[in-house]
Amino acid sequence: MTGDPVPVTLSDKLKLIADHWHPRIVARLDDYHVKLVKVKGEFVWHTHADQDEMFLVLEGEIVIRMQDRDVGLSRGDLFVVPKGTEHCPFAKEEASLLVLGRADTDQTGGVASELRAEGQEWI
Amino acid sequence: MTGDPVPVTLSDKLKLIADHWHPRIVARLDDYHVKLVKVKGEFVWHTHADQDEMFLVLEGEIVIRMQDRDVGLSRGDLFVVPKGTEHCPFAKEEASLLVLGRADTDQTGGVASELRAEGQEWI
Repeated sequence: MTGDPVPVTLSDKLKLIADHWHPRIVARLDDYHVKLVKVKGEFVWHTHADQDEMFLVLEGEIVIRMQDRDVGLSRGDLFVVPKGTEHCPFAKEEASLLVLGRADTDQTGGVASELRAEGQEWI
Repeated sequence: MTGDPVPVTLSDKLKLIADHWHPRIVARLDDYHVKLVKVKGEFVWHTHADQDEMFLVLEGEIVIRMQDRDVGLSRGDLFVVPKGTEHCPFAKEEASLLVLGRADTDQTGGVASELRAEGQEWI
Protein backbone atom coordinates (compact mmCIF):
# COMPACT_ATOMS: atom_id res chain seq x y z
CA MET A 1 0.00 0.00 0.00
CA THR A 2 1.36 3.37 -0.96
CA GLY A 3 -0.13 6.82 -1.10
CA ASP A 4 -2.69 8.41 1.17
CA PRO A 5 -4.91 6.04 3.11
CA VAL A 6 -8.49 5.92 1.96
CA PRO A 7 -11.65 5.34 3.96
CA VAL A 8 -12.79 1.73 4.13
CA THR A 9 -16.48 0.87 3.93
CA LEU A 10 -16.52 -2.43 5.78
CA SER A 11 -19.76 -3.71 4.24
CA ASP A 12 -18.41 -3.14 0.72
CA LYS A 13 -15.20 -4.99 1.50
CA LEU A 14 -17.08 -7.91 3.02
CA LYS A 15 -18.94 -8.41 -0.25
CA LEU A 16 -15.60 -9.21 -1.87
CA ILE A 17 -14.95 -12.12 0.48
CA ALA A 18 -16.43 -15.50 -0.38
CA ASP A 19 -14.22 -17.93 1.52
CA HIS A 20 -13.77 -18.73 5.20
CA TRP A 21 -10.79 -18.28 7.53
CA HIS A 22 -8.91 -16.20 4.96
CA PRO A 23 -8.30 -12.75 6.47
CA ARG A 24 -7.86 -9.76 4.17
CA ILE A 25 -6.07 -6.61 5.27
CA VAL A 26 -8.03 -3.38 4.91
CA ALA A 27 -5.87 -0.92 6.83
CA ARG A 28 -2.59 -0.55 8.65
CA LEU A 29 -2.22 1.16 12.03
CA ASP A 30 1.44 1.54 13.00
CA ASP A 31 2.70 -2.06 13.14
CA TYR A 32 -0.80 -3.54 13.18
CA HIS A 33 -3.11 -4.79 10.49
CA VAL A 34 -6.86 -4.31 10.45
CA LYS A 35 -8.32 -7.39 8.78
CA LEU A 36 -11.70 -8.65 7.67
CA VAL A 37 -12.49 -12.33 7.70
CA LYS A 38 -15.52 -14.53 7.20
CA VAL A 39 -15.64 -17.63 9.36
CA LYS A 40 -17.74 -20.76 9.64
CA GLY A 41 -17.17 -23.90 11.67
CA GLU A 42 -14.21 -24.45 13.93
CA PHE A 43 -10.76 -23.00 13.41
CA VAL A 44 -7.66 -24.57 14.96
CA TRP A 45 -6.52 -24.26 18.56
CA HIS A 46 -3.57 -21.89 18.66
CA THR A 47 -1.74 -19.30 20.72
CA HIS A 48 -0.13 -15.96 19.91
CA ALA A 49 2.64 -16.03 22.49
CA ASP A 50 3.48 -12.36 22.73
CA GLN A 51 0.64 -10.42 21.15
CA ASP A 52 -2.99 -9.67 21.89
CA GLU A 53 -5.66 -10.12 19.21
CA MET A 54 -8.88 -8.13 18.94
CA PHE A 55 -12.13 -9.47 17.48
CA LEU A 56 -15.13 -7.31 16.59
CA VAL A 57 -18.18 -9.13 15.23
CA LEU A 58 -19.67 -7.36 12.21
CA GLU A 59 -22.24 -9.99 11.22
CA GLY A 60 -23.44 -13.18 12.88
CA GLU A 61 -22.24 -14.78 16.08
CA ILE A 62 -19.06 -16.53 17.14
CA VAL A 63 -17.66 -18.27 20.17
CA ILE A 64 -14.06 -17.79 21.22
CA ARG A 65 -13.21 -21.06 22.90
CA MET A 66 -10.45 -20.90 25.46
CA GLN A 67 -9.15 -23.57 27.79
CA ASP A 68 -10.91 -22.22 30.86
CA ARG A 69 -14.00 -20.62 29.33
CA ASP A 70 -15.95 -19.80 26.21
CA VAL A 71 -16.84 -16.25 25.23
CA GLY A 72 -19.87 -15.79 23.01
CA LEU A 73 -19.91 -12.73 20.78
CA SER A 74 -22.71 -11.26 18.69
CA ARG A 75 -22.75 -8.41 16.19
CA GLY A 76 -21.28 -5.31 17.81
CA ASP A 77 -19.38 -7.25 20.48
CA LEU A 78 -15.65 -6.80 20.87
CA PHE A 79 -13.16 -9.04 22.65
CA VAL A 80 -9.41 -9.10 23.06
CA VAL A 81 -7.77 -12.51 23.37
CA PRO A 82 -4.80 -11.91 25.68
CA LYS A 83 -1.32 -12.87 24.54
CA GLY A 84 -0.38 -16.39 25.53
CA THR A 85 -4.00 -17.57 25.69
CA GLU A 86 -4.78 -20.67 23.66
CA HIS A 87 -7.99 -20.09 21.75
CA CYS A 88 -10.15 -21.51 18.99
CA PRO A 89 -12.76 -19.39 17.20
CA PHE A 90 -15.97 -21.18 16.30
CA ALA A 91 -19.04 -20.12 14.34
CA LYS A 92 -22.09 -22.31 13.91
CA GLU A 93 -23.23 -20.20 10.96
CA GLU A 94 -21.18 -17.87 8.80
CA ALA A 95 -20.01 -14.76 10.62
CA SER A 96 -17.99 -11.72 9.59
CA LEU A 97 -15.27 -10.33 11.81
CA LEU A 98 -12.92 -7.41 12.05
CA VAL A 99 -9.65 -8.67 13.50
CA LEU A 100 -6.85 -6.43 14.67
CA GLY A 101 -3.41 -7.66 15.60
CA ARG A 102 0.26 -7.12 14.92
CA ALA A 103 1.17 -7.21 11.24
CA ASP A 104 3.64 -10.01 11.92
CA THR A 105 1.03 -12.20 13.63
CA ASP A 106 1.01 -15.78 12.45
CA GLN A 107 -2.64 -16.72 11.93
CA THR A 108 -2.32 -20.09 13.65
CA GLY A 109 0.57 -19.25 15.95
CA GLY A 110 2.71 -21.67 13.95
CA VAL A 111 0.23 -24.56 14.13
CA ALA A 112 -0.05 -26.46 10.86
CA SER A 113 -3.61 -26.56 9.52
CA GLU A 114 -5.35 -26.81 6.19
CA LEU A 115 -7.34 -23.77 7.35
CA ARG A 116 -4.21 -21.65 7.61
CA ALA A 117 -4.11 -18.84 5.03
CA GLU A 118 -0.72 -18.27 3.47
CA GLY A 119 0.61 -14.80 2.79
CA GLN A 120 -0.93 -11.44 3.51
CA GLU A 121 -3.50 -10.09 1.12
CA TRP A 122 -4.96 -6.62 0.95
CA ILE A 123 -8.50 -6.15 -0.25
CA MET B 1 -8.08 -3.36 34.64
CA THR B 2 -7.18 -6.64 36.20
CA GLY B 3 -8.45 -10.17 35.70
CA ASP B 4 -9.63 -11.83 32.55
CA PRO B 5 -10.82 -9.55 29.79
CA VAL B 6 -14.56 -9.59 29.21
CA PRO B 7 -16.51 -9.14 26.00
CA VAL B 8 -17.61 -5.58 25.32
CA THR B 9 -21.02 -4.88 23.84
CA LEU B 10 -20.38 -1.57 22.14
CA SER B 11 -24.02 -0.45 22.06
CA ASP B 12 -24.35 -0.98 25.82
CA LYS B 13 -21.21 1.00 26.53
CA LEU B 14 -22.34 3.85 24.30
CA LYS B 15 -25.48 4.25 26.40
CA LEU B 16 -23.24 5.17 29.33
CA ILE B 17 -21.72 8.12 27.49
CA ALA B 18 -23.59 11.42 27.56
CA ASP B 19 -20.87 13.97 26.82
CA HIS B 20 -18.87 14.83 23.72
CA TRP B 21 -15.15 14.52 22.95
CA HIS B 22 -14.50 12.51 26.10
CA PRO B 23 -13.16 9.10 25.07
CA ARG B 24 -13.67 6.11 27.36
CA ILE B 25 -11.44 3.05 27.21
CA VAL B 26 -13.22 -0.27 26.68
CA ALA B 27 -10.31 -2.61 25.96
CA ARG B 28 -6.57 -2.81 25.80
CA LEU B 29 -4.65 -4.47 22.96
CA ASP B 30 -0.93 -4.68 23.71
CA ASP B 31 0.11 -1.03 24.12
CA TYR B 32 -3.06 0.29 22.50
CA HIS B 33 -6.39 1.40 23.87
CA VAL B 34 -9.75 0.77 22.22
CA LYS B 35 -11.93 3.75 23.05
CA LEU B 36 -15.49 4.87 22.51
CA VAL B 37 -16.35 8.51 22.11
CA LYS B 38 -19.37 10.58 21.18
CA VAL B 39 -18.65 13.69 19.18
CA LYS B 40 -20.53 16.73 17.94
CA GLY B 41 -19.27 19.91 16.34
CA GLU B 42 -15.63 20.63 15.65
CA PHE B 43 -12.71 19.32 17.67
CA VAL B 44 -9.33 21.03 17.66
CA TRP B 45 -6.69 20.80 14.94
CA HIS B 46 -3.90 18.58 16.18
CA THR B 47 -1.23 16.09 15.19
CA HIS B 48 0.01 12.81 16.65
CA ALA B 49 3.61 13.03 15.56
CA ASP B 50 4.64 9.40 15.77
CA GLN B 51 1.48 7.31 15.93
CA ASP B 52 -1.42 6.42 13.67
CA GLU B 53 -5.01 6.73 14.87
CA MET B 54 -7.93 4.58 13.69
CA PHE B 55 -11.53 5.76 13.54
CA LEU B 56 -14.53 3.48 13.03
CA VAL B 57 -17.94 5.14 12.86
CA LEU B 58 -20.55 3.28 14.93
CA GLU B 59 -23.40 5.80 14.64
CA GLY B 60 -23.88 8.94 12.57
CA GLU B 61 -21.43 10.65 10.25
CA ILE B 62 -18.19 12.53 10.68
CA VAL B 63 -15.67 14.36 8.59
CA ILE B 64 -11.95 14.05 9.27
CA ARG B 65 -10.60 17.38 8.10
CA MET B 66 -6.98 17.36 7.05
CA GLN B 67 -4.89 20.14 5.53
CA ASP B 68 -5.03 18.76 2.00
CA ARG B 69 -8.40 16.99 2.00
CA ASP B 70 -11.51 16.05 3.94
CA VAL B 71 -12.60 12.45 4.45
CA GLY B 72 -16.28 11.82 5.08
CA LEU B 73 -17.17 8.73 7.10
CA SER B 74 -20.55 7.11 7.74
CA ARG B 75 -21.56 4.23 9.98
CA GLY B 76 -19.41 1.23 9.21
CA ASP B 77 -16.61 3.27 7.66
CA LEU B 78 -13.07 2.99 8.97
CA PHE B 79 -10.14 5.35 8.46
CA VAL B 80 -6.61 5.57 9.77
CA VAL B 81 -5.14 9.05 10.19
CA PRO B 82 -1.45 8.61 9.46
CA LYS B 83 1.12 9.71 12.01
CA GLY B 84 2.25 13.29 11.52
CA THR B 85 -0.97 14.31 9.74
CA GLU B 86 -2.69 17.34 11.19
CA HIS B 87 -6.40 16.61 11.47
CA CYS B 88 -9.61 17.91 12.96
CA PRO B 89 -12.64 15.65 13.42
CA PHE B 90 -16.01 17.32 12.77
CA ALA B 91 -19.57 16.08 13.17
CA LYS B 92 -22.59 18.15 12.17
CA GLU B 93 -24.83 15.96 14.33
CA GLU B 94 -23.86 13.69 17.20
CA ALA B 95 -21.88 10.64 16.13
CA SER B 96 -20.39 7.69 17.98
CA LEU B 97 -16.91 6.43 17.21
CA LEU B 98 -14.57 3.62 18.07
CA VAL B 99 -11.05 5.03 18.21
CA LEU B 100 -7.93 2.93 18.44
CA GLY B 101 -4.51 4.32 19.14
CA ARG B 102 -1.50 3.94 21.37
CA ALA B 103 -2.34 4.03 25.07
CA ASP B 104 0.05 6.95 25.55
CA THR B 105 -1.59 9.03 22.82
CA ASP B 106 -2.29 12.59 23.83
CA GLN B 107 -5.82 13.39 22.67
CA THR B 108 -4.91 16.79 21.25
CA GLY B 109 -1.27 16.09 20.49
CA GLY B 110 -0.35 18.59 23.21
CA VAL B 111 -2.60 21.36 21.90
CA ALA B 112 -4.41 23.23 24.69
CA SER B 113 -8.19 23.15 24.30
CA GLU B 114 -11.23 23.28 26.52
CA LEU B 115 -12.37 20.17 24.62
CA ARG B 116 -9.36 18.20 25.81
CA ALA B 117 -10.30 15.37 28.19
CA GLU B 118 -7.94 14.93 31.11
CA GLY B 119 -6.91 11.52 32.32
CA GLN B 120 -7.84 8.10 31.00
CA GLU B 121 -11.14 6.61 32.02
CA TRP B 122 -12.38 3.06 31.55
CA ILE B 123 -16.05 2.43 31.06
